[in-house]
Amino acid sequence: MVASNGKLTSRDVARLAGVSQATVSRVLQNSPLVQPATRQAVLDAIAQSGYAPNAAARWMRTRRTGIIALVVANLAVNPLYPAMLQLLSTALRKRGMSASVYEEEDFSESTMRGIVEGGVDGVITTTAMESSLPFLERIADQVPVILLHRTVSSKAFDQFSSDNHASGASVASFFAKNGRKKIGLISGYNLPSTLREREEGFAAELARRGLQLKECAIARVPKFSYATGAEAAREIMMAHDVNAIFGVNDIVAIGALDGVRSKGLAVPDDVWVVGHDDVPMAAWDCINLTTVAQSREAMVDAAVARLCARLDDQDLRPKRVVLPHEFIVRGSAG
Amino acid sequence: MVASNGKLTSRDVARLAGVSQATVSRVLQNSPLVQPATRQAVLDAIAQSGYAPNAAARWMRTRRTGIIALVVANLAVNPLYPAMLQLLSTALRKRGMSASVYEEEDFSESTMRGIVEGGVDGVITTTAMESSLPFLERIADQVPVILLHRTVSSKAFDQFSSDNHASGASVASFFAKNGRKKIGLISGYNLPSTLREREEGFAAELARRGLQLKECAIARVPKFSYATGAEAAREIMMAHDVNAIFGVNDIVAIGALDGVRSKGLAVPDDVWVVGHDDVPMAAWDCINLTTVAQSREAMVDAAVARLCARLDDQDLRPKRVVLPHEFIVRGSAG
Repeated sequence: MVASNGKLTSRDVARLAGVSQATVSRVLQNSPLVQPATRQAVLDAIAQSGYAPNAAARWMRTRRTGIIALVVANLAVNPLYPAMLQLLSTALRKRGMSASVYEEEDFSESTMRGIVEGGVDGVITTTAMESSLPFLERIADQVPVILLHRTVSSKAFDQFSSDNHASGASVASFFAKNGRKKIGLISGYNLPSTLREREEGFAAELARRGLQLKECAIARVPKFSYATGAEAAREIMMAHDVNAIFGVNDIVAIGALDGVRSKGLAVPDDVWVVGHDDVPMAAWDCINLTTVAQSREAMVDAAVARLCARLDDQDLRPKRVVLPHEFIVRGSAG
Repeated sequence: MVASNGKLTSRDVARLAGVSQATVSRVLQNSPLVQPATRQAVLDAIAQSGYAPNAAARWMRTRRTGIIALVVANLAVNPLYPAMLQLLSTALRKRGMSASVYEEEDFSESTMRGIVEGGVDGVITTTAMESSLPFLERIADQVPVILLHRTVSSKAFDQFSSDNHASGASVASFFAKNGRKKIGLISGYNLPSTLREREEGFAAELARRGLQLKECAIARVPKFSYATGAEAAREIMMAHDVNAIFGVNDIVAIGALDGVRSKGLAVPDDVWVVGHDDVPMAAWDCINLTTVAQSREAMVDAAVARLCARLDDQDLRPKRVVLPHEFIVRGSAG
């Protein structure tokens, strides 16, 4: 009954059910050409024979697929996400799990369905927004959900992030202490927690120090990319005389470096530029960006460990963990 | 019989089988404590009741999980791979499939097992090496395997790639035609097909044109990264007076730009630098790298379409498709 590779085959199932192999195929393809009684005979034979792929067998044994859905964004545009994805996939693999990747700036109905129906054991999302909450809640009815990087107001989820309010404030202090007081900001619309908190922390600290952030010195990009960052810096400089620009993430800040230079000004002599996240490129000599580093590796490890704990005990009380950040001075400012 | 969320529960199965819920759990955990007859009753009840997660139900219906394993490398280091991963994941999603990501420079036994046991419908690998062949063959016994980007000598696989020999030659022609004849090369050891063919095409075209590529003007990096590229350029310039450097991929070429400048020389006035792949950063003003673009999007679409065709007909004759490339002149050379 057992094929040469040690596995049962559709031929074995056909023999057990007393039908042809073609009929077994038709049943497996859900063909309407099969009579109900024949169909039942084949399904019974499948159940009896243990004819199932390894993944299904594992599920029967452990009720786990070993697959964790990872939600990330903009893999080709924002180098933060591939860096996080690499850490996440390594951390999962160390624990014998694998990653099913959903690339999406926010949750859509189809991603939600893909995740719920995809037979994953759990979800780690780096892209949660307040608007994701209904999706997150529906997913959490089925499998554990961990929020990484971005946070939401709900207390129903484990959440691992940096203190983005404090890191935004640290950029304002840095400008103020160094006498850079004509300040521009590159931010966006409909911001996720990370960017909103950085902007709020930055503006609050400037206000606390009696520095003004004029409306005309804020450029809001429709999407965060190198090109929009460069354009935003040019817009700010046309409207306003600035000597320091904060880009709320590195990718717009890297664009801003080139935007400033395209106007014939020098970084850092004329204009300082600071970003946030410490993507790998920020350390390249040709970029050399002053920025704020999140504890990416510690954040990922903590989130994956928490997911594992929650897989073993779904009644754990949700916790919120804030990881340290570090201000990194390079050539673009300071 | 139906729980509040519309799904059958283990309680329903227990009632159908006339056993306790604990017994159902034991069967699902494959416990040796359950009598064979009881075990069979529970399995029958599971088969009857349709008690199975969505993913398992889909598998029973279609014999497909909808999950494709993608093998990529160096997500955080070489921006080519996140760019390919984004295209692949979008192309799969368009066809209702999702991506399970394995990040690995070459196949390992554990990745191979993860893929074979992970219940994936097929595999697209961007990182195949000659040494991967035994793994690829074992995986192909179970599910379709498509090779993308890198190729192997075997004719047993569908393979989609650029003509890397021709694109390497085009870099040599470009240097020669423009009178840049003191030439350096950054390559590596134990090369995948992509890089080996680029190097061979480059060297062959130089020889055809009577130009010398001196051993001391070839730097071989242990890994392909920005840092090793910068160091390689410095090594080449210490050993040899060059006025043009070819980095066999963009990430080492970007490093070389900064390596050249760190020696007090100017790009392109003193030294031309050309890369290969046209990663997104190559177009940034601060990098501005002359390079060769592969038809990434067309290559990914063709590979995913082929995978779908092969899922429907596993007896298709393997084919090898070579996609066009394009030489892109930017500020670093030309």
